[in-house]
Amino acid sequence: MLEFNNMSYKLLKKSKKTKARRGQLKTRRGTLETPFFMPIATKGTVKSLTYEDLIQLESQIVLSNTYHLMIKPSEKLIKKAGGLHKFMHWDKPILTDSGGFQVFSLSKIRKINEEGVEFRSHLDGRKLFMKPEDSIQIQLDLGSDIVMVLDECVELPAKKEYIEQSIDLTTRWAQRCRNYFDKKTAKQTKAKKAKLFGIVQGGLEKDLRVKSAKALVNVGFDGYAIGGLSVGESEQDMYKVLDFITDELPEDKPRYLMGVGRPENIINGVKRGVDMFDCVIPTREARHGRLYLWNGKYTKDAFWNKPKSIYKQINCKAEKFSQDFTPINKDSRFEPLRIYTKAYLRHLFSVHEPLAIRLATLNNLEFYLNLMKEIRKNI
Amino acid sequence: MLEFNNMSYKLLKKSKKTKARRGQLKTRRGTLETPFFMPIATKGTVKSLTYEDLIQLESQIVLSNTYHLMIKPSEKLIKKAGGLHKFMHWDKPILTDSGGFQVFSLSKIRKINEEGVEFRSHLDGRKLFMKPEDSIQIQLDLGSDIVMVLDECVELPAKKEYIEQSIDLTTRWAQRCRNYFDKKTAKQTKAKKAKLFGIVQGGLEKDLRVKSAKALVNVGFDGYAIGGLSVGESEQDMYKVLDFITDELPEDKPRYLMGVGRPENIINGVKRGVDMFDCVIPTREARHGRLYLWNGKYTKDAFWNKPKSIYKQINCKAEKFSQDFTPINKDSRFEPLRIYTKAYLRHLFSVHEPLAIRLATLNNLEFYLNLMKEIRKNI
Repeated sequence: MLEFNNMSYKLLKKSKKTKARRGQLKTRRGTLETPFFMPIATKGTVKSLTYEDLIQLESQIVLSNTYHLMIKPSEKLIKKAGGLHKFMHWDKPILTDSGGFQVFSLSKIRKINEEGVEFRSHLDGRKLFMKPEDSIQIQLDLGSDIVMVLDECVELPAKKEYIEQSIDLTTRWAQRCRNYFDKKTAKQTKAKKAKLFGIVQGGLEKDLRVKSAKALVNVGFDGYAIGGLSVGESEQDMYKVLDFITDELPEDKPRYLMGVGRPENIINGVKRGVDMFDCVIPTREARHGRLYLWNGKYTKDAFWNKPKSIYKQINCKAEKFSQDFTPINKDSRFEPLRIYTKAYLRHLFSVHEPLAIRLATLNNLEFYLNLMKEIRKNI
Repeated sequence: MLEFNNMSYKLLKKSKKTKARRGQLKTRRGTLETPFFMPIATKGTVKSLTYEDLIQLESQIVLSNTYHLMIKPSEKLIKKAGGLHKFMHWDKPILTDSGGFQVFSLSKIRKINEEGVEFRSHLDGRKLFMKPEDSIQIQLDLGSDIVMVLDECVELPAKKEYIEQSIDLTTRWAQRCRNYFDKKTAKQTKAKKAKLFGIVQGGLEKDLRVKSAKALVNVGFDGYAIGGLSVGESEQDMYKVLDFITDELPEDKPRYLMGVGRPENIINGVKRGVDMFDCVIPTREARHGRLYLWNGKYTKDAFWNKPKSIYKQINCKAEKFSQDFTPINKDSRFEPLRIYTKAYLRHLFSVHEPLAIRLATLNNLEFYLNLMKEIRKNI
């Protein structure tokens, strides 16, 4: 049985050797081929790119950050504009995070209690309070297609006792998000409804992760995210959690590993049954002149088992590229990447020309999205 | 008689009311319709644009800055790359300045003598010396199509005596540039040769300007630039110089007003017989969120005599655009400018997204290049 009827996630193929799976996620704005990667449009734009670039990149979906958008320009303004899709001119799906991660990472002063979290805007210091219901309402105002519940992101290392209290709170918040979301979307048909995802927390503790997963599955969501990873722990520790956690999640729902990661992390995530990824790495690295490039042909074995061998990362700001008159990327679909030389790109970085970042961003996102294509092809 | 046979400048039409003239300038990289405007590719790129954008803009030519390129990445590297055209992938003409203007404006420490000018790099403080011959050699190494002589740019106000000494020096340097250029290009056919332009100086003094012009015409150049204007004097003072200076220049050679200006300055320059313009205004203003937009239909009379009435400049960072959901520019050839709203552009500026600058730059250069088309049409 490879299909889950009446479900929005359709399993197409499963690997015989690993937990890797290929499928389709049906959303109100079209069907996504899984596994997929979401470029980050933090403030309503993938840095330095237009919607035309995203279309040319064949990006299936983008991720926007609720925290940044609620601060500027505000969800009210975006609602007035006709929603985030219209505002940024993007008609494919958008996933929004809950805002929680930035509340916990950007805001120095924050107080959490049963009701929600109090924090100060990192921009102007004004005091704000966010309840789980607020996060959902903001995401609904933005017009998000995949809405995330508000969770507490515990900084590691933390005492096990604290983590346990935290996942219990996160579960209660998840239930409140579910209730609020259902109430607010009660009149929408299933085809028109956004999706709501729960977020499994629990640090590196197996029993707590399992407890969190079971509790969230009990609430019932359209998909399950694995949060609180790639926050400083070793890759091996992250893989250990992934090794068991996807088994706790329903097979007929998509799994989303938040904020991960390098190409080898994504491949290793897929092998452990993950379907969705997002990460700032391709775009952030681009801004620092670090380009992802393929290493030529590779075997299927190398792809899955030695993923670091299939690609290279070059720092095109390095002196050694100053006289490299070969194309930035001869295989790119973007003509400027095929025509401009590495020496030219190095020059642009060296004199701080913004075009440098645009070119590097196109290169890295193309690499990441091609990587996902290769993953889907190789499952 | 409207044609100048065997000349690289061909006069097509003269206004009956003003000195405005329409023509063609033949270069080794194609024929340019005059009057024209040159977008500034200071460091080998028009800030935030690719060659594809410049083609879409129908830019006939760009201007690059010798000073910036000789400092980084150096003319030697660009020569190795196959020249500036190949380096930046631009096969239409490039005009390069002599480097003099930046030597005098950017470098705090400089000493001028008969031989040349000693200055320090504004980047690392290293001591450099530039002779007129050096400037020509660097421009030849870059592969410039229109080469400018090295001149002294006198800061105004200055004593008349000093200005007179300075124009005499500039004339001697111009002769040395002519000699060096001719020696170095002696083996090239006329069709393959770059052009060499002299630069008229002389501040706001009529007699000195005339003296400078006569002396340069006596040396003989392919075109004549009017330098040392738009450096802080009033617009009326600038127009006064233009009122008489073009009469001193050969009718069969193009005239280039350096570093000018706002749309009304360009129109007023054309009325006084100028054929070529360059200015940082459209690109620099774009970086500050100031957009040039047409004011709708206008009469020919308004175009020539009330040029400020035919366009408006909006500061799209202003609060009043935060809820302006009309297109940035409904008449643009660039789809993103027709589709993205002013509110979205304001948001991008407000959160410092580099896409904002790219969009504003495209808008302003399109405006300037359309302005030149309108000028050519209206002569």
